[in-house]
Amino acid sequence: MEKLSVVKIGGNVLDNAEKLAAFIEQFAALKGAKILVHGGGKIATELSEKLGIATQLIDGRRVTTADSLEVVTMVYAGLINKNLVAQLQGLHTNAIGLSGADANLIQAKKRVHPNIDFGFVGDLEETSVSAKQLKSLLDAGLCPVFSAITHNGQGQLLNTNADTIASAIALALSSIFETTLIYGFEKKGVLEDVANENSVIPHINQEQYIELKNKGLIYSGMLPKLDAAFTALNGGIARVIVGDACKINQLESPAGFGTSLTLN
Amino acid sequence: MEKLSVVKIGGNVLDNAEKLAAFIEQFAALKGAKILVHGGGKIATELSEKLGIATQLIDGRRVTTADSLEVVTMVYAGLINKNLVAQLQGLHTNAIGLSGADANLIQAKKRVHPNIDFGFVGDLEETSVSAKQLKSLLDAGLCPVFSAITHNGQGQLLNTNADTIASAIALALSSIFETTLIYGFEKKGVLEDVANENSVIPHINQEQYIELKNKGLIYSGMLPKLDAAFTALNGGIARVIVGDACKINQLESPAGFGTSLTLN
Repeated sequence: MEKLSVVKIGGNVLDNAEKLAAFIEQFAALKGAKILVHGGGKIATELSEKLGIATQLIDGRRVTTADSLEVVTMVYAGLINKNLVAQLQGLHTNAIGLSGADANLIQAKKRVHPNIDFGFVGDLEETSVSAKQLKSLLDAGLCPVFSAITHNGQGQLLNTNADTIASAIALALSSIFETTLIYGFEKKGVLEDVANENSVIPHINQEQYIELKNKGLIYSGMLPKLDAAFTALNGGIARVIVGDACKINQLESPAGFGTSLTLN
Repeated sequence: MEKLSVVKIGGNVLDNAEKLAAFIEQFAALKGAKILVHGGGKIATELSEKLGIATQLIDGRRVTTADSLEVVTMVYAGLINKNLVAQLQGLHTNAIGLSGADANLIQAKKRVHPNIDFGFVGDLEETSVSAKQLKSLLDAGLCPVFSAITHNGQGQLLNTNADTIASAIALALSSIFETTLIYGFEKKGVLEDVANENSVIPHINQEQYIELKNKGLIYSGMLPKLDAAFTALNGGIARVIVGDACKINQLESPAGFGTSLTLN
């Protein structure tokens, strides 16, 4: 089976021109079929503040109002996505920037919650990602670059968690490709001690993850990533790795890279 | 030869929810292969004002500063493009939103001028549009939706006139498809008397156009459209029509639609 890397990068990499340049260069050099998924929440928050759009929270949870949806659509699908694509093109990677609405690649369901109206937030289901359409883009030699915007199939754009999108894409393609899902961020991996950058746990299985979670040892920003990762592993993808976005050139190094996640 | 419609819509249609909905419905119903190209200058100007980004003019000509480029990338390639795509998807048109950077579809040259630095403005050349790549998207049953953002192939996004993009795309595909280029806007066609909405000139050939232009009878907003149109006609495309974006369902009506432009 052909190899596929699905790489997700987050706000702390996108925000830093130097780190971003390092990441892009290494991503462009990755061999085999590849897909990039990006967030961009920090840049969206900055633009919201400039425009005087308040972040709405209900019960401490963020709500995507119509105004916020406009901001994330501009920042994720426009500013960040097209700059990533142009930079990859400059490195001879034939990138194509996409939202879930494009070619109906990712169709989500507006979140329904008994007490909270989360606004224009989309959740994914098992059939959300069109693997067939995505494969045809990969087969054409293109490198899809996804922003975290999806749609409901009826004309409405939705804001969807980028970690979840990466996991759903990896999962949808895992029967066609030998798929590795890589969560790249600003740390070297999952840390045993958040204060110690070098305390990377090289390997975590599902049992250990549940234990770490129960002990409160997984810090909050890491939770959605790891939950999405184990969902993907349970669905059948080959490998999930969490590590430094600026060192993905060491992905296959014998010394190891980041934290490997496996079921057993 | 298979038929292809390349339709361009501008700011006055995009700005008006009612007109836009009417246009999208009619565009979705157009038969055959089709491509949409959109501007969005008015919405970009509004966002620039909100962000306190001044429109820079040199010798009365607009300059795309780094800040303005960020705004148009957000508005054109993000907000407008993805909403158009989602709405077309809602009408079962398998739209895919693109900039010129995506799949390296349109590579432009940063404008060089002896006296004025226009900033991040990209001009097109004969080989700018990748007809082969674009045809493969059309062959896959997709409907490309282009924002007026291109790139230089070396990592830099550029702002490019949407009328020119529409014309260049039509031209590049004219040897593969029987191509009609349609400039849809808020008027019924090229008017003999700007004050009279019903004074549509049904047909203008190149000689007449030059005459009208010399007499100063073509109002300024129409000039780039018609110049691009005659460039396309001289390059070999079948038909160019200028007319009401909300009446493109009458494109083939015997009563005629808008102003037809031809060489002779």
